[in-house]
Amino acid sequence: MDNEENKIQLSSQRFVEASKFRGKTYISIREFYEDPEGNLKPGKKGISLTIDQWKKLCENIHKIDRMIDRLDI
Amino acid sequence: MDNEENKIQLSSQRFVEASKFRGKTYISIREFYEDPEGNLKPGKKGISLTIDQWKKLCENIHKIDRMIDRLDI
Repeated sequence: MDNEENKIQLSSQRFVEASKFRGKTYISIREFYEDPEGNLKPGKKGISLTIDQWKKLCENIHKIDRMIDRLDI
Repeated sequence: MDNEENKIQLSSQRFVEASKFRGKTYISIREFYEDPEGNLKPGKKGISLTIDQWKKLCENIHKIDRMIDRLDI
């Protein structure tokens, strides 16, 4: 079973997940699907960020929000 | 030419971009590549979030950081 503690739900099928692969931590923002056994599996649509990329995203939240505001004017 | 004001660089090829499509605003976290003319083009690897999904991600930054910390223990 999936460890729900490691996923944040963004929409019915989209999640943010933290995981380790070959000793490195990744933050995946990804669409998931249910396999025939009802387990949530990662799909193709998404991206797995390194910690450095994740930090850069977090540092730039306000800039990104301003980009959104400019588009909506 | 691309409007640099609408992109935040996460790594050499990865960017966060705000854009409008059919009247809706999307935040794309995506790998880009250079076409033969030197223009930056969006690649397949990535995900385009709606504003609602983007807000949910932002609201959960601290939870996601805690998920990362738990993995690194």
